[in-house]
Amino acid sequence: MLAVFWIRSWVMGALLMLAMPVSAFEVLQPLPDQPIIPADNPQTEAKVRLGWQLFFDPRLSRDISVSCNSCHNLAAGGDDDGGATRQPGRFIQRSAPTLWNAAYMSVQFWDGRAKSLEEAFMDHLLDPQILAMPSPEALMQRLMAIPGYRRQLAEVFPGESASAQMVAKALAAFIRTLKTPNSAFDRYIRGQEDALSPAARRGLDLFNEKGCLACHFGVNFAGPAPGPSFKMGDGFYELFPNYLGTEYDDRYRFTDDVGRVRITRRNDHTFMWRVAPLRNIALTAPYFHNGSVKDLAEAVRIMGKVQFRHDLTEQEVQDLVAFLLSLTGEIPEIRLPRLPETPGVSLAP
Amino acid sequence: MLAVFWIRSWVMGALLMLAMPVSAFEVLQPLPDQPIIPADNPQTEAKVRLGWQLFFDPRLSRDISVSCNSCHNLAAGGDDDGGATRQPGRFIQRSAPTLWNAAYMSVQFWDGRAKSLEEAFMDHLLDPQILAMPSPEALMQRLMAIPGYRRQLAEVFPGESASAQMVAKALAAFIRTLKTPNSAFDRYIRGQEDALSPAARRGLDLFNEKGCLACHFGVNFAGPAPGPSFKMGDGFYELFPNYLGTEYDDRYRFTDDVGRVRITRRNDHTFMWRVAPLRNIALTAPYFHNGSVKDLAEAVRIMGKVQFRHDLTEQEVQDLVAFLLSLTGEIPEIRLPRLPETPGVSLAP
Repeated sequence: MLAVFWIRSWVMGALLMLAMPVSAFEVLQPLPDQPIIPADNPQTEAKVRLGWQLFFDPRLSRDISVSCNSCHNLAAGGDDDGGATRQPGRFIQRSAPTLWNAAYMSVQFWDGRAKSLEEAFMDHLLDPQILAMPSPEALMQRLMAIPGYRRQLAEVFPGESASAQMVAKALAAFIRTLKTPNSAFDRYIRGQEDALSPAARRGLDLFNEKGCLACHFGVNFAGPAPGPSFKMGDGFYELFPNYLGTEYDDRYRFTDDVGRVRITRRNDHTFMWRVAPLRNIALTAPYFHNGSVKDLAEAVRIMGKVQFRHDLTEQEVQDLVAFLLSLTGEIPEIRLPRLPETPGVSLAP
Repeated sequence: MLAVFWIRSWVMGALLMLAMPVSAFEVLQPLPDQPIIPADNPQTEAKVRLGWQLFFDPRLSRDISVSCNSCHNLAAGGDDDGGATRQPGRFIQRSAPTLWNAAYMSVQFWDGRAKSLEEAFMDHLLDPQILAMPSPEALMQRLMAIPGYRRQLAEVFPGESASAQMVAKALAAFIRTLKTPNSAFDRYIRGQEDALSPAARRGLDLFNEKGCLACHFGVNFAGPAPGPSFKMGDGFYELFPNYLGTEYDDRYRFTDDVGRVRITRRNDHTFMWRVAPLRNIALTAPYFHNGSVKDLAEAVRIMGKVQFRHDLTEQEVQDLVAFLLSLTGEIPEIRLPRLPETPGVSLAP
């Protein structure tokens, strides 16, 4: 079964190579030990530690009401259980994607508008609907008033004057540690055939046969892994929904959000989205960009219909779900940091 | 100095005994190793573990948007940096008090309306402005849909049918572990004279001389510790502000909130408040029930003026602040729990 699957994968890989610059070995593979680390932001223990504190610090938000972890909850799926779209007083149209293994993505956000984690953090820090800092200067004024951060920034980035870019770099360095290896799928692909249940193995075959793999391949099931011919910052986008006119249009209103065209202003980018990663998808309900679908089986059914005009049987849906559940990795234990103090003083606005 | 101080304390204690049922040894003492554990909610490891998970779980809020930790941030002062009063879409008039050492308080909340931590959790779970669960049944329907919680509730409370009371009990058990021992003050009071700086020692003397100690005594500097003559559930309340007509009325609008009268409907409870605990006050800015004062020195100045009609000198303010900063204890490391999963399903409303 494993051998057969690999042959299929290679065929699929060869087909994909005709359409895009991707090497065949990327089609399916276990989670690599490390994501790509950008040359201008090397990982250091002190930097990761600083990013870890910043990630949990509500003082990164203008009104000191939310931290990164509020919407990307590392006690759960690294996402928000659809809560971002329900944050009172905020207008957040899109479900928060998981940060587990986000460092393996070549671009960030549903529309791929951030070419790196560093860019993604700069975006979120200043987005009026998210952390809402009025300017990079306002952010640094806030953080430099905290003696612990002032000291740590000087230690982590010696000889540079403190900047919001450093904050983004430290946060990105922390995110690059958020890896979930050794899913049942990973063990299977490494050769442990009984790591997947029969249902999950049928689901994996279906995932290939039905065409899901054409987009959901690579280390994160989200497209080509960055390499010589596909760089970090290159995005892998697909049309969603591919077919309109189904019962799902009204029910889930996917097309209320036009997708990547909002960023690029190119008509052919209407309803184009970054192909969503599938690792840990069991933990990241609700699904799709608007978080409108609460159930993975329904999400699979929808994908069959709106992407392939195909009615999956309930058996097929169940097998595909069994396969998708096998993508849940080992989630590392996270400690809650002690946030550096400003004794006897609140920095609240 | 220590001896002199103790004599003063005993005198003050004797005076206090005339006015209220409190034994002199309670006037000042180090943080006891354990808070009082109610007979109907004994601590067990499994119960504390369950409460720890629940504390960080946004699924305890109706719209799955906030957890207990959102406003009582254990990465910081166990409070909210004034953020509760700024939560968009919620009308929370009062600053979130710290949960560090909250188990040593005889009543909970600014107005003392909860006679136990268990009662406090039941209140918050159902408060439409806080966790906003529509009913205890709705809460249990949510939690019993999570296999991990269903199993843990049965293990922690064997033979009982699952109820919201169990949830409150588990959360209360977790809060009873949130202790911060060994502050500089605690070490001083145990005999290590150099644990306090000269300024902090002067501040401690002033704290007694100026009358602060008349209310801020006991293990949490918040009144009598529960004992034979003052039970858990008995509240210790004071008038705040004691004097009106100062410059602070308009500036901080303390009297916009009438305090305990809102609960008891007794006129003599207008502007009555639970005496606030002072341990870790360095970490719990902003100050007062409405979180309107960002700076501890200003809070001290205000207390002198509105409680005693006394203008403290800047030297006195500084010394009192130095003493208050000595009340910061050792904060234990908290791990982020793994929240029990509902694979492939969101429970979002």
